[in-house]
Amino acid sequence: MKERMLTGDRVTGKLHLGHYAGSLKNRVALQDRYEAFLLLADVQALTTHFDRPELIRDHLREVALDYLAAGIDPEKSTVFVQSMVPEIAELTVFYSMFVTVNVLRHNPTIKSESRNGSLDEMYYGFLGYPVSQAADITFCKATVVPVGDDQLPHLEFARKIVRRFNELYQPVLVEPKALLSDMPRLVGTDGSAKMSKSLGNAIPLDSSKEELAHNIRRAVTDPARIRKNDPGHPDVCPIYTYHRVFRPEGADEIREGCERGTMGCAGCKERVTEALERLLEPMRERRAYYAARPKRVDEMLIAGTNRARAIARETMAEVREAMSLNYF
Amino acid sequence: MKERMLTGDRVTGKLHLGHYAGSLKNRVALQDRYEAFLLLADVQALTTHFDRPELIRDHLREVALDYLAAGIDPEKSTVFVQSMVPEIAELTVFYSMFVTVNVLRHNPTIKSESRNGSLDEMYYGFLGYPVSQAADITFCKATVVPVGDDQLPHLEFARKIVRRFNELYQPVLVEPKALLSDMPRLVGTDGSAKMSKSLGNAIPLDSSKEELAHNIRRAVTDPARIRKNDPGHPDVCPIYTYHRVFRPEGADEIREGCERGTMGCAGCKERVTEALERLLEPMRERRAYYAARPKRVDEMLIAGTNRARAIARETMAEVREAMSLNYF
Repeated sequence: MKERMLTGDRVTGKLHLGHYAGSLKNRVALQDRYEAFLLLADVQALTTHFDRPELIRDHLREVALDYLAAGIDPEKSTVFVQSMVPEIAELTVFYSMFVTVNVLRHNPTIKSESRNGSLDEMYYGFLGYPVSQAADITFCKATVVPVGDDQLPHLEFARKIVRRFNELYQPVLVEPKALLSDMPRLVGTDGSAKMSKSLGNAIPLDSSKEELAHNIRRAVTDPARIRKNDPGHPDVCPIYTYHRVFRPEGADEIREGCERGTMGCAGCKERVTEALERLLEPMRERRAYYAARPKRVDEMLIAGTNRARAIARETMAEVREAMSLNYF
Repeated sequence: MKERMLTGDRVTGKLHLGHYAGSLKNRVALQDRYEAFLLLADVQALTTHFDRPELIRDHLREVALDYLAAGIDPEKSTVFVQSMVPEIAELTVFYSMFVTVNVLRHNPTIKSESRNGSLDEMYYGFLGYPVSQAADITFCKATVVPVGDDQLPHLEFARKIVRRFNELYQPVLVEPKALLSDMPRLVGTDGSAKMSKSLGNAIPLDSSKEELAHNIRRAVTDPARIRKNDPGHPDVCPIYTYHRVFRPEGADEIREGCERGTMGCAGCKERVTEALERLLEPMRERRAYYAARPKRVDEMLIAGTNRARAIARETMAEVREAMSLNYF
């Protein structure tokens, strides 16, 4: 029996190289070792995008296509829609009974979002998103959640919810373990710490060859390097990061050439563009294949959601019995 | 077409005369004029009783029996179990996206419960109970909610949620109207402002003849009246309130006799006991009838819950479409 792994994405935008390097590549590899559940988090997207639900709607299938393009195999991975598993909402409501506001406000994400430490202007649903995340993980009794360092507090919170529930009622929930990955957080093409669509510094996974080349060309490099033969500082250059992540075999050579001033930025960018094109080209093909077959994508999502719901129903039956809310 | 009315009770204890006078009597009358939906609020009970779910479980059927005993007719009223309508949890989650913590903390009930105005020690689910109450009312598009003055702010909050939802998405939800009743808040047998099981000053609807008589005998009266012939002050006497509420036709005579000192407390109590016994005796019989037929009670709850769910599903389909979360 494989262990069950849960992970997923908010469906507020297409996925980009940052998602790929930071998690998606890892998931493609992990789907052989684990029974993988991939959540298209439309309800969680509402916590920040409740006034733009069309955007969520439009991106649900785009993210599904990104998954397929990147190599997620619907035979191995269960891709499902969060809002179509009402048991997640039910668990969110149950868990919210025994979580204090105090605990939620100390969640790192909530904390950084609450201006001046005041909760007042925060939306109630946003404040509760760690609770809803705990429901996402536990409804299917996932034992494994791939996380980066920065997400460890969220997972720890979900583990606390499980322990509290099991202690209050009956031990029916499963404490998820962190599957710590050292997948990098990719810098943006503007050099800022995180690649992000909203910062306009992202390279989407569905970029055309031209878009990719354009995005790399306009990417910032070492600002101190003015002339081609100036010695560069690869550690401050996003392009060098891309070499390390997507073309590690050639990264040392790039570093040397950059630091010595023998490798110019244009040539350096060309090589990383080639490497990225080798990565994106087959993705583009798979994407085109499924984009031309929207019914197959829908069938995958419906089948995945049905699988998730069947498991959700079983868990809810146990949860109700544990809480003695199974009346009939 | 009758308008739809929603009301209900938290299932944390058996109902008593305070419930009867304050709402249940009214509901029995209203079930002819409205399509009545009666909510057994077990999820809301969890906001305060999450660590005693057995108590909720035990009282669900007791409250159902109290309803039947008091004259709720399952042919006219739909009695249903809140936790068995998952759409209520889904709506709670959706509504929580666009309600700020600030609005919730100014809800009168939340305000009075938060010590020193601090939300920190409050449970997240409790803070959100006005949101969940709005989901209770709106899932079935109730147009009418019977309320006392003190509950008007809760209904106003639900109306605001409806307006906000309809404005953000599509106008599919219905704004409920208050059906203001002047049903009295009944004083306890100890003279405190509210009859309440937890204060030990309540007369349960299922009291035996002996329990009723005992509870009235031990009830406080005008403390200034020491001897039988002392003139009394009916306005400070809970027994006089019971006369006015349950035996209005004889209340003037009681007032006169009390104020003149011609009617002693024992005789006064005897008369109100007789009146209450006339009220409770047929309830006791109906209760015994159904208590001996637990299957019929379960069938009523299951049928009512199925009716409620069918409506909930329709509403959710419209809600999803309005929010453009209807993907397939």
